[in-house]
Amino acid sequence: MKKYKLTLAYDGTQYAGWQVQPNATTIQSSIENALKQIYGKPISIVGAGRTDAGVHARGQVAHFNLEQNIDENKLLQSLNHLTNPDIRILSLTPVEDDFHSRFSAKRKIYHYHVFLGRFPDPFTRLYYTLHPFDIDPSLISESLPLLTGTHDFSSFANDQHKGACAKNAVRTLYRFEMFIEKESLRFELEANGFLYKMVRNLIGLVLEIGTKKRSLDEIPHILRAKDRKQAAKAAPAQGLFLHEIIY
Amino acid sequence: MKKYKLTLAYDGTQYAGWQVQPNATTIQSSIENALKQIYGKPISIVGAGRTDAGVHARGQVAHFNLEQNIDENKLLQSLNHLTNPDIRILSLTPVEDDFHSRFSAKRKIYHYHVFLGRFPDPFTRLYYTLHPFDIDPSLISESLPLLTGTHDFSSFANDQHKGACAKNAVRTLYRFEMFIEKESLRFELEANGFLYKMVRNLIGLVLEIGTKKRSLDEIPHILRAKDRKQAAKAAPAQGLFLHEIIY
Repeated sequence: MKKYKLTLAYDGTQYAGWQVQPNATTIQSSIENALKQIYGKPISIVGAGRTDAGVHARGQVAHFNLEQNIDENKLLQSLNHLTNPDIRILSLTPVEDDFHSRFSAKRKIYHYHVFLGRFPDPFTRLYYTLHPFDIDPSLISESLPLLTGTHDFSSFANDQHKGACAKNAVRTLYRFEMFIEKESLRFELEANGFLYKMVRNLIGLVLEIGTKKRSLDEIPHILRAKDRKQAAKAAPAQGLFLHEIIY
Repeated sequence: MKKYKLTLAYDGTQYAGWQVQPNATTIQSSIENALKQIYGKPISIVGAGRTDAGVHARGQVAHFNLEQNIDENKLLQSLNHLTNPDIRILSLTPVEDDFHSRFSAKRKIYHYHVFLGRFPDPFTRLYYTLHPFDIDPSLISESLPLLTGTHDFSSFANDQHKGACAKNAVRTLYRFEMFIEKESLRFELEANGFLYKMVRNLIGLVLEIGTKKRSLDEIPHILRAKDRKQAAKAAPAQGLFLHEIIY
């Protein structure tokens, strides 16, 4: 038996997220269906990040096992043929038996795109969250270091109904940066792990700070409270990209 | 009565082109429907370029008349509210009575995007024509000056079933340039006017030259023949952008 690592990009707009669900098309099910078409039997894949409905990825990683040896390039081509054009398998490589897409990950990087114009740009509308409100980016800049570092991020974690619950909500956010572009903001977050909806919950809060709905002073209190209700509403899925998994 | 000029961008993927057609959603009908919702009566708009189904625009221009004076900014906002997010009205300005979006145009600029990878990029797939064939860009570069200038472009004009036929097929193509990007080609064409499907027919030919299906020697013959059958198949709609109309 041999283990393989897949790296893939997708536009999540049309999908009910990564993980297989009954009566819904997901990224995982699309790839598992393609593998079944190729090998004539079910093959499960395990993804590094269980992206939610509407979330995109530039560097999602998954692993799976195959009994036979394969021509990796040929399988890569076949998977790209058999999945929709909004999913693209970027690479397929053999890995050691002890590799696990999720548990072997050392760091993850997410990006979040906010469009500040009053109306969306027709060509990037699916990849930006529209936020047509007066915003003070300098307040957001001040908020980011207050959230960076090692914290118990319980106030930024939603209950995850499916899958394992995080027993320990302490994570290290190495990097939480904002880049100001022409008519938009791009956030980059890098951590040793993210809790369920943590990126969207962090972005939701810093946008409320940028619009002065919340003040910077509240941040230490919100972190200490370890209570999801204390923080802001999650920012929408469509601006979120799973950018890279670092092993 | 007052005349107004609209500049707009759209993702043409979901539309049956610019022009109103029975039983189809078009860009023109979307905007006319919005105007009808606002003013309670039909108002016709006249577009500069009748883009085909699936063709995009960054700088389409249209004009229309209104009986009353209006708050232009308010109308701009309302039109953007009432149209889908894949259409964006960029500006709305009053113009002189003798302005005509099509007949007053001095030059038009179209762009065409070709993606050379084997499989599309999920995030730009709707805006590039996939062309996963070995291509020699230097052959294409050599072909462009042979097509630039003042020619009878009959060999690059499809019959236009709707609307006025071009009696005179002589046009001046001021600029036909290719820009090589990471995994793609971008063509820019600027002319005093384009015949029906002329851009897509020109791109179809230069791509056949790039893949050595046709030779550079054939170009003068194709131009002289004034016969659509002599040139290549039109390139697909999805890579085409109406970029700008110059008045």
